[in-house]
Amino acid sequence: MTDSVRLRFDLAYDGAAFSGWASQPGQRTVQGVLEDAIATVLRIPETALTVAGRTDTGVHATGQVAHLDLTREVWVRERDLLLRRLAGVLPPDVRVRTVREVPAAFDARFGALWRRYEYRVCDRPEAVSPLRRAFVLSWPRALDVAAMQTAADALHGLHDFAAFCRRREGATTTRTLQALAIDRVDDEIVFIVQADAFCHSMVRSVVGALIAVGEGRRDVGWPAALLGRDRRADDVPVAPAHGLALVRVEYPADDELAARTIQTRARRD
Amino acid sequence: MTDSVRLRFDLAYDGAAFSGWASQPGQRTVQGVLEDAIATVLRIPETALTVAGRTDTGVHATGQVAHLDLTREVWVRERDLLLRRLAGVLPPDVRVRTVREVPAAFDARFGALWRRYEYRVCDRPEAVSPLRRAFVLSWPRALDVAAMQTAADALHGLHDFAAFCRRREGATTTRTLQALAIDRVDDEIVFIVQADAFCHSMVRSVVGALIAVGEGRRDVGWPAALLGRDRRADDVPVAPAHGLALVRVEYPADDELAARTIQTRARRD
Repeated sequence: MTDSVRLRFDLAYDGAAFSGWASQPGQRTVQGVLEDAIATVLRIPETALTVAGRTDTGVHATGQVAHLDLTREVWVRERDLLLRRLAGVLPPDVRVRTVREVPAAFDARFGALWRRYEYRVCDRPEAVSPLRRAFVLSWPRALDVAAMQTAADALHGLHDFAAFCRRREGATTTRTLQALAIDRVDDEIVFIVQADAFCHSMVRSVVGALIAVGEGRRDVGWPAALLGRDRRADDVPVAPAHGLALVRVEYPADDELAARTIQTRARRD
Repeated sequence: MTDSVRLRFDLAYDGAAFSGWASQPGQRTVQGVLEDAIATVLRIPETALTVAGRTDTGVHATGQVAHLDLTREVWVRERDLLLRRLAGVLPPDVRVRTVREVPAAFDARFGALWRRYEYRVCDRPEAVSPLRRAFVLSWPRALDVAAMQTAADALHGLHDFAAFCRRREGATTTRTLQALAIDRVDDEIVFIVQADAFCHSMVRSVVGALIAVGEGRRDVGWPAALLGRDRRADDVPVAPAHGLALVRVEYPADDELAARTIQTRARRD
């Protein structure tokens, strides 16, 4: 057993100038920029981050989480100045907010209990704050929040969300939607969407369907009726990326993870 | 007496791409962009806004106020669709949030009781939110908020702020500083600065002086000692524009202004 440590990175980024999270050749991605910065600062040849939510092009994050493994030697040598040095190397549209050692059983992707996204819309174009316009969808027609909430309530719980997902090979589209709350906060309508996990484009498709209800183009029962379909519904609009942000990912407590780590090691020995 | 109405415009803008408020030939200014949009929408040859705070290049506003006079005929014809049509014509970095008729005694510039600005600083570069970086100064060294507040308290009240002002011909530099509160709010330090009026570059110079105190380069008593000078102090750093926003301007209540208008008319008749 090598003497390695598992590190949890808490991240924030403005998604506007990134081709999403996942590394792609020739594209500026959050993963690519971060892995390059970490390798530079730690003076290691390369590194690989595992992330909670593989956000799409243009999607923001204030509460993204990733993990990576490092030799204890490098970690002990670098930890005190790591955050400050990363801030010096990273472009200003991505920040590593904290880095800390976690139990070996911590897994940013498969260990997440739930993910929470927020989607923001302003349905009065004259009221879109110039200081927030890069993070809020401007919608030209008034939206009925009560109607959208009624439609949203029927999506709660365990369902096959295939109608709201861009299918990825082998990935399940059955998810538990734990929360879907819609509120007017000052001049913005905020959709808070929480699930155990999300399939591809699910939040933006759910919001797109609810907006259709909110402006009266669709019936209140329409989004829930789509749950019966077994494939993507082409009539579900996908809301634009810039209104969406990953705001929080929840994990088991460290002591619980530490107990799992010890069990795993005991079994292995 | 022509049948004209006085209109109050409540405005917000992202100052990054503007050469400040005041119209200048060949420059993109908030006043220029707004006056063009208003003339276009109202189909009038030109118009002139009077503003509460002539903000500098790069300074933002969430609570700017301006007024203009219009014939009642045009106002009655256009008022219902005015906001929506302005939103359609204006670029997204400036919004007219409300327009309403006010008593003739309302004056956005000379009638303001006080102006309030906010200046935002983050003194941990790793914590500057990527979604807020255009509106928050990133400062590389830790700032002592308690020391800055002590220094700030000594600036309260009526003083000649010449040391903190870029002199403009004929303008007084004697102002009443009504509030100067400094607080950490999440990862940001917020300076709330309120006065009857401000001379040119005063907020940014006061903040610049306080930051020098906060990082220990200057004594807590230094900013107040500058009040004795009768001209701009070259050793006072001017904090960068992008951390500054005009957030509120206060006026007398409409009924008080209406009473003044009637008195003025009675005197005139």
